[in-house]
Amino acid sequence: MSEENLSSLFNGLIDGDVMSAAKLITLIENESPAAPEIYRMTYPLRGQAYVLGICGSPGTGKSTLINGLIALLRAREKKVGVISIDPSSPYSGGALLGDRIRMQGHATDNMVMIRSMSTRGSMGGLSKATLGAVGVLDASGKDVIIVETVGIGQDEVDIADAADTTVLVMTAGLGDQIQVLKAGIMECADVFVVNKADQGGAEKLILEIQLMLGLNRDYQIDQSWEPPVIKAEAINEKGIEELWEALEKHRSFLQANGGLEEIRKKILVRETMDILTNKIRERALEAILGGGSVGELADKIYEMKKDPYSAAFSILEIAGF
Amino acid sequence: MSEENLSSLFNGLIDGDVMSAAKLITLIENESPAAPEIYRMTYPLRGQAYVLGICGSPGTGKSTLINGLIALLRAREKKVGVISIDPSSPYSGGALLGDRIRMQGHATDNMVMIRSMSTRGSMGGLSKATLGAVGVLDASGKDVIIVETVGIGQDEVDIADAADTTVLVMTAGLGDQIQVLKAGIMECADVFVVNKADQGGAEKLILEIQLMLGLNRDYQIDQSWEPPVIKAEAINEKGIEELWEALEKHRSFLQANGGLEEIRKKILVRETMDILTNKIRERALEAILGGGSVGELADKIYEMKKDPYSAAFSILEIAGF
Repeated sequence: MSEENLSSLFNGLIDGDVMSAAKLITLIENESPAAPEIYRMTYPLRGQAYVLGICGSPGTGKSTLINGLIALLRAREKKVGVISIDPSSPYSGGALLGDRIRMQGHATDNMVMIRSMSTRGSMGGLSKATLGAVGVLDASGKDVIIVETVGIGQDEVDIADAADTTVLVMTAGLGDQIQVLKAGIMECADVFVVNKADQGGAEKLILEIQLMLGLNRDYQIDQSWEPPVIKAEAINEKGIEELWEALEKHRSFLQANGGLEEIRKKILVRETMDILTNKIRERALEAILGGGSVGELADKIYEMKKDPYSAAFSILEIAGF
Repeated sequence: MSEENLSSLFNGLIDGDVMSAAKLITLIENESPAAPEIYRMTYPLRGQAYVLGICGSPGTGKSTLINGLIALLRAREKKVGVISIDPSSPYSGGALLGDRIRMQGHATDNMVMIRSMSTRGSMGGLSKATLGAVGVLDASGKDVIIVETVGIGQDEVDIADAADTTVLVMTAGLGDQIQVLKAGIMECADVFVVNKADQGGAEKLILEIQLMLGLNRDYQIDQSWEPPVIKAEAINEKGIEELWEALEKHRSFLQANGGLEEIRKKILVRETMDILTNKIRERALEAILGGGSVGELADKIYEMKKDPYSAAFSILEIAGF
């Protein structure tokens, strides 16, 4: 990547060109040598977008809901970016991407950018490059960036660390709601959506969520925010308006109490520590193997016939750390 | 922890004492200074247990299924350990642990040990200490160790890295099966269970899984294993026997083709790299802050007013790496 190409990509990015943004994200994803420069250039432009995390079990209708949000935001002339985190890349894994295809209805619209990212090879629930990609979309002038994860559990906890506001989408009809309502997951959500509310059991689920929220109140990080539970039928375009109102309310709440700055700080620290850790690991590998692969290191660790702690300390010693 | 206490815990562990195992796991979880010694002492005793990962969406009946497996294994005089990974600790998060309580039916049985672990503060889907805890249970002479994750998505990919055999539990009745059947998730599973098979749609789901398995065949890591799809009604004790047969078949398959050694190697490398990374991070913190907390580092990073890449490189420089 020549410097000239990179600066033309930056110019494109600032002009809101979707292709330039996509290319810059790919460079970050592939850990291109240009990545540090991309971070350096985009960072001062960040911080304007409202970053929304949306998670929930498969089958809860997340994508339909996001579709509805996109339509609402487009009607209000907001620029929208969507990052969809898949446990595997849709292109390499052979997934049937029903939801992705649905969202592509907006893909011809230049003000909407939809990007799938793989978590393959990542250590955490989010792709290593997710935060970088959010940063690029932010720098490109998007008003709202939606980060969608397909999973629940750790994915949920991670997305709450990366977003200003986290939405948990649920539906009635899953057998044992107690399992859905586990603490930890609930603590992460700022707004709840009970989707497919025309299905039986929605009212009961809403009550259960409200009950759990009451029980969990002591464990909530910010006790002055009471997470609302929004009833929706995304497929019939019901509840989207109410959801957006709840989101705006949470955003105002964050802005008023300094929470937004806290979140941005946490994200910056996380990004920095992720990069730091990767760099140190790289250097450790280089010191031990003279630039070998992780595969060679694996053989070396195995051949040591040591327990993992002793092996780790041996490597530290060899690497001179 | 005095040396004497530690060696009495080891003696207890080897005698199969549940409390000793529990205490050793707690020491690992709390990153006690005794952790390296615990790894050193337990490592040579590892490798005998068959490690089973069980994952699936909330509400699929994983805990009932595990309950059934425990009963079957106990009837065959197998010693069983269960590690349940929660996005938050059941003790700090106020969860209604319906499933945990169900499993506790076996908790008075000395041959069964059930342990919940939090993922709080962990970077990955698994608790940092999960592999260490599996190692302790393995060293204590358990024949089968079941690691259960509550989530799907990244949790699933991670558990497949930590287990000999990975089971994905599904149920019909979730709206959009296409979303459940995403690649990446399916690639990780060695055995599928369609639970609650008395519910409508189970046959259709089985066909869909088989279809996806056919489509995914090219992406499967080991193409000589055809993942079976087991039909179960765990609540009525149906399908447990068939599941165990499938598991034993997979284990024999792994033993026959050298896959078991490959898995054990991968787990050792992962454990070592996790410990290594933590140690390096600790040392970096110490070098930068003279032993400060991550919180102080966060302030420092934020005050730098640099993008994450530049901040990471500054820290590396300060730390002399």
